[in-house]
Amino acid sequence: MRVNAKDVASHTGEVIEVKGWVHRIRNLGKVIFVILRDRSGMVQLVFDTDPALTLESVISAEGEVAANDKAKGGVELQVKKHSIYSKAEADLPIPVNQDLDKLSLDTILDHRMISLRNPKIRSIFELQSAILDYFGSYMRSEGFTEIKTSKIISTGTEGGTGLFSVDYFGTKVFLAQSPQFYKQAMVASGLERVFEIGCAYRAEKHDTPRHLNEYVSLDVEMAFIDSEKELIELEKRILKAVFSRIAQTNGEQLALWNATVPQPDSVDAIPTVSHEEAKEIISKATGHRVFEINPEGERVLCDWAGREYGIDAVFVNDFPRKERPFYAYPVGQKTMSFDLLFRGLEITTGGRRINEYQMLLENLPKFGLSPESLSDYLQIFKYGCPPHGGFAIGLERLTQKILGLSNVKEASLFPRDRKRVRP
Amino acid sequence: MRVNAKDVASHTGEVIEVKGWVHRIRNLGKVIFVILRDRSGMVQLVFDTDPALTLESVISAEGEVAANDKAKGGVELQVKKHSIYSKAEADLPIPVNQDLDKLSLDTILDHRMISLRNPKIRSIFELQSAILDYFGSYMRSEGFTEIKTSKIISTGTEGGTGLFSVDYFGTKVFLAQSPQFYKQAMVASGLERVFEIGCAYRAEKHDTPRHLNEYVSLDVEMAFIDSEKELIELEKRILKAVFSRIAQTNGEQLALWNATVPQPDSVDAIPTVSHEEAKEIISKATGHRVFEINPEGERVLCDWAGREYGIDAVFVNDFPRKERPFYAYPVGQKTMSFDLLFRGLEITTGGRRINEYQMLLENLPKFGLSPESLSDYLQIFKYGCPPHGGFAIGLERLTQKILGLSNVKEASLFPRDRKRVRP
Repeated sequence: MRVNAKDVASHTGEVIEVKGWVHRIRNLGKVIFVILRDRSGMVQLVFDTDPALTLESVISAEGEVAANDKAKGGVELQVKKHSIYSKAEADLPIPVNQDLDKLSLDTILDHRMISLRNPKIRSIFELQSAILDYFGSYMRSEGFTEIKTSKIISTGTEGGTGLFSVDYFGTKVFLAQSPQFYKQAMVASGLERVFEIGCAYRAEKHDTPRHLNEYVSLDVEMAFIDSEKELIELEKRILKAVFSRIAQTNGEQLALWNATVPQPDSVDAIPTVSHEEAKEIISKATGHRVFEINPEGERVLCDWAGREYGIDAVFVNDFPRKERPFYAYPVGQKTMSFDLLFRGLEITTGGRRINEYQMLLENLPKFGLSPESLSDYLQIFKYGCPPHGGFAIGLERLTQKILGLSNVKEASLFPRDRKRVRP
Repeated sequence: MRVNAKDVASHTGEVIEVKGWVHRIRNLGKVIFVILRDRSGMVQLVFDTDPALTLESVISAEGEVAANDKAKGGVELQVKKHSIYSKAEADLPIPVNQDLDKLSLDTILDHRMISLRNPKIRSIFELQSAILDYFGSYMRSEGFTEIKTSKIISTGTEGGTGLFSVDYFGTKVFLAQSPQFYKQAMVASGLERVFEIGCAYRAEKHDTPRHLNEYVSLDVEMAFIDSEKELIELEKRILKAVFSRIAQTNGEQLALWNATVPQPDSVDAIPTVSHEEAKEIISKATGHRVFEINPEGERVLCDWAGREYGIDAVFVNDFPRKERPFYAYPVGQKTMSFDLLFRGLEITTGGRRINEYQMLLENLPKFGLSPESLSDYLQIFKYGCPPHGGFAIGLERLTQKILGLSNVKEASLFPRDRKRVRP
């Protein structure tokens, strides 16, 4: 019966079997130490004769567990018998058992199949899996239904720019930028509260540490709200739940990156400032007047919130109409919309949507859109749609900011950018 | 404070507010009954004067809750005050409050934005949301990590046929048919046990009640198995968990479709027959010799299992090499692979994969593949890969078969087929 590495210490004196990858080899001649890595952790194996292993080979080993203060976890396995499942070739393209900080991100991503074996890199995705769990469980606890909507669409959500096209049996269709129309349809279907975890595609030529052309969007939409303020409160509850479960359960991953999550209670203190106020704060801090909130401005705002409110996050609301899509609910020249900036990066965009058919019809021409091109979408509103709104959190950006990664691509298993479609 | 329809009965004698959609109107002159529908259910409203509502309008209503034996749930709301959030136009394209069985599937799908409001249709997706939850929770309970892999790939998994092409900044790439290579990479990364819930794309021209060109795949992959038999046992445990939680929690959705899930214990009784045996069973039952297992054969096999084992499901293993992809682990002319047929339909394909680098290199030319075209994939095996395997369950097919839907498209919110890319 196989024992996982982290549980070996509780079998001292017993004969057990372990299975895993050869992480490190130290050959002292008379005795050979091998560090074996499995999904749970690492354990030291001791061989009397050289097993002639290569790094990354996958083996099983049987022997008695003995106490050894010098070994990690205080025990080691004195191997009597071992077998090799798969022998790794010796020309490893990436030194899996070393700190990979010295390698360029391109090298790490070019050899993704191997670099993911590095425990520190792998931990990013252990944390990401946990975030998916915590997010979904929290949404269900508030009565949200999970939906899965098509990513193949015949027209774009926001006018057709920035879309990848797909050859669909000879017809040109597109990859969805967001599930926006569909999540609104599902709210109006009577589900009232929906969430979706799905891919989103942006055919934008940006090549920055904050952009991905394919990312995972955590989408939320709910009915019967008056303004974006209820959405901001909902997002605070979600983040509180996610942060507190991470703090409880994912200390190991945080420690590898020397990272911390905000104290769950500090989430309540995140300030909300209007788009105008935000620009003033940035102008004041930087000494030059700003007209839009650019990446530098996002960092400045978060620093300001950190000093003033004890958490480096800030909600910005009241965006002007011209900066938001046609479906944003207008109030004069502003909209009931918001962004959340966290640790210097926008991780959420959201707002109340127009739910009134006439208001929507009047708004379309202002954005150069025709009712014909949106006829399916307009059905939602023609036949009764509650006031509603929602938002989307970028999974990779949230992961990046929790762990303090310098590039969002590090938080995507197989990132796609302008030049990268492999591995 | 809003009360949900299903909770109204516990507020008898109190003044409360409800919000929702106008499901039905019965105007008796002196009194007007309105059935209000919300995400939790329905409640009867009583008006003294005609509120002049239209079906599907979204309203809020305030009044006292009074007992009424004739009303659903035994109570009604005597409305004192109401307001209209959104007035629906009167020319509803679909009669939301009727049984939609008389409409063609095309009509239902053409008006998907409205037909989803029908409570019976909506219930399909309430159940589907629950399946996603139960599947994910069960996988986590066995130590599986959730992964999200790219759907944009530069080469096809199984030779390049049946792929949709995407224009990626001027380069032709493809939509992934499955996360096969990536989930194998993640097993080999040391995670050992992974699952993914994601879209899969098949550019196949089938137009049948069992095919979708875009579907949600519940993918599972695990390390350190000897054969497909451990995967079959794992799938049984998953199905048992999913069925038993549905039986406990989703009685309402099952009842609307007059459906039942198999008794969780009966899952243990699902037989496994070899591909050869399966063909014999079909030949015997149909009286004509069969050479492959076609849709009719799948139904025959499930009927046979229902009679012999008390559950209309059967695992078929030992598929011949020529019917499986290049990565299926060979044993002579057969492979360690399997399908699960459930209620007459294949809902799972899986098997042990080749984990030995040399064996894989030798296998490629037999399938017309070159090592160069799969160089990223081959890295997984060159540098140590444990024995492993996995499978994928089609979410829509599973939903379809649980509820007894006649077409898999009914189990997709916004299905994509040969001709349909909207709404």
